[in-house]
Formats: sequence, structure tokens, C-alpha cells
Amino acid sequence: MQDGPLHHLIKALSSLPGLGNRSARRIALHMLGRRESLMLPLARLLERAAAEIKACYICGNLDVLEPCSLCQDGQRAQNQICVVAQIGDLWAIERTGAYKGLYHVLGGLLSALDGIGPEQLGIEGLVLRTRSPDIQEVILALSATVDGQSTAHYVADRIMRTGLEITHLAHGVPVGGELDYLDDGTITTALRSRKASE
Amino acid sequence: MQDGPLHHLIKALSSLPGLGNRSARRIALHMLGRRESLMLPLARLLERAAAEIKACYICGNLDVLEPCSLCQDGQRAQNQICVVAQIGDLWAIERTGAYKGLYHVLGGLLSALDGIGPEQLGIEGLVLRTRSPDIQEVILALSATVDGQSTAHYVADRIMRTGLEITHLAHGVPVGGELDYLDDGTITTALRSRKASE
Repeated sequence: MQDGPLHHLIKALSSLPGLGNRSARRIALHMLGRRESLMLPLARLLERAAAEIKACYICGNLDVLEPCSLCQDGQRAQNQICVVAQIGDLWAIERTGAYKGLYHVLGGLLSALDGIGPEQLGIEGLVLRTRSPDIQEVILALSATVDGQSTAHYVADRIMRTGLEITHLAHGVPVGGELDYLDDGTITTALRSRKASE
Repeated sequence: MQDGPLHHLIKALSSLPGLGNRSARRIALHMLGRRESLMLPLARLLERAAAEIKACYICGNLDVLEPCSLCQDGQRAQNQICVVAQIGDLWAIERTGAYKGLYHVLGGLLSALDGIGPEQLGIEGLVLRTRSPDIQEVILALSATVDGQSTAHYVADRIMRTGLEITHLAHGVPVGGELDYLDDGTITTALRSRKASE
């Protein structure tokens, strides 16, 4: 048991983000009860995804196409680039349907603590892309954290040129957010950026 | 994207117990960044486990051996059977090292609400096993819930015979448990089952 396939499976599952030993055991047992309907299809999906999904060499998005379907989509505005840290952020923005431009995925945030410098992130590619006069706006959609904001400053410094508008997401009270549960920083920012009611 | 391998992978992952859409996305992205070291090995482990791990026809334990390594182990007491609902419970008892007899995994608990009757559980196999005069004790290690206790009553009724001792786990204050945080039922049971201090 201690070095059988079940033990190895549980160990591999427990190394996934958000899963511990207990949840890995639970998932392994759940799958062993559904081998044909869940376990083997999942194994094949993992193999297929590992083989077919590539990081787009232009924007860093993950897709089966190269360049990715977003970069290939002529319907999207070709003069805007939205810079995000991770693919998950790109998906979050796409889910809103509120943005119809291009993207650039950095692959992380600058972090002195974790030893992540500009060379580990896709910043050179972004600098090259934003030199094109076709690009008129770069939206820095980075987290409102220390790392996110220092990355935004660094990226803005690197890509700044005449005629390029550099913007960032508005800070404020989340829609549906209750004031009582918000942190002081958010309330302060929302107060300072207050707008005239219509 | 909506029907690509990534979408299917995330859908399959989010069907695992304890995982939602967000954690499934996070796990998929994590794996896509570690294809050779995590994603493909996990796919192979899933295939291997699905092919090699079998439910023991004697006790219901999961193992690559048939009968399982616990049933084959001559060092274990052959006169005790510990009845558990799930493999996870068997593992929990094995981790303690406090029990050295045989097991019987029911595969669940009787539940009128979920429509689980005696025929869905491994109760017939247990009845057959306990008819052997070699078996002197059956420990009902079932949860202290309504379903667990009604299953224990049903199983005890079915296997009862002269010379067979039927026991259950002691109820009481968990080791390290603080009285203030315990439910009333546990404290009542612990009071009623109080023992003389040594």
C-alpha cells in the first residue's frame, strides 16, 4: 500500500494547488468508483490538453491555435492591449464581455520576495508589441496589491512613448459590496475617486 | 475555447468532490505550467491506478493484490473483523496502528433519504464471513450519525449469533478536545460513560 499506485496517485493529487492529503484521498476514492466514466476520460483529457494546448507566442494566452484565437480574431480592436498577470485574469475579463481588444499575459508579477524579475515575465514581448504605432492604449489590469502595483509602474515606465495612452482599472467599492465589510484602503480610494451622481 | 480540450479538462476537474469551477481552473493552469513533471505523470498514474487497483472480494479494501494485502497478512488477528463504511475509514484506523485484525468495508451506510438499502452494501458478504466460528469479535466502527447508528443496528441484528462479540467504538471527548467547543450530545455521552480515574 505504501508504495502502490494508489499511494502515488494520492501524492500527485495532493501536490495540486488547494488540495491537501485528505481531499486528495477523497478524490482518488471518488474516481476509483467511477473508472470508466471519470478516471480514464480524465487521464485522456490530461494527455490531450498537455499535447495540444500551447502558449500563444504573441500574447501568452493558452489555446490550441497559434497564434491564439483572440490574436487571430480580426473583429477585436487591434489598437488596445490589456496587460494581465495570469491567464485566469484574462478569462475573468473575457467572461465580462466588456473588453474587445487584444491581451498580453505577463505570466506573473514582479516580486522581490519570490525573486521574480522582469526577465522572468513576458515584458520584452510587450515592449516590442507596444512600439507599433497601431497600439493606442495599454490597459494595465493588474491586481491592486503591492506586487501588482509595482509591476504596473515598471511596465508603464518601459512602454511609455508619445501617443500611447496607459490606463489602469478603476479602484472602488465592488458592485454589490457592503461598505461595512470593505477594508479601509478601498473605502479611502473610493472616496477620493468619487464621481458626480447622474 | 468554449469546446476545446482546456474547457473539457476544467469541466472534468470541477466534477471532482470538493472542487468548483474556480479551483478547477486554477489546477488546470497549474498543471499546464508543469506538463512533463506533473500533468503527464498524473495522467499515467490515473490509467495505472484504474487498471491495477481492485476491490478485494473478501473485505472490499482497495489494493493491487487479490485478496488484498490486509486479508493475506497472516500476522494479523484472524478472529476480529472491523466493519467500516468507507475505505477512507479503514485508512484512518490503519494510520493509528492500534488495530491488527481484519476489516470489512460496507461501501456506504444505509440511508432512507439517499435510497441506499442493505442490498447496495457489502452486508451479505459480512454475514457469510461472520458465520465462521473463527471470528470471535466484530467491531462496528461506523460514524456516530443517524445513518451510521442505524446501519450499526441493522448489521448487528444480521450477524448476531452465540459466541460472537459485537462491539462499537467508544464515544466521548476527543483527545485534545476542549469541552467548551463540544456539542451537548458528546458531553452527555462522555458523562454517562465516565470512568474511574486511575
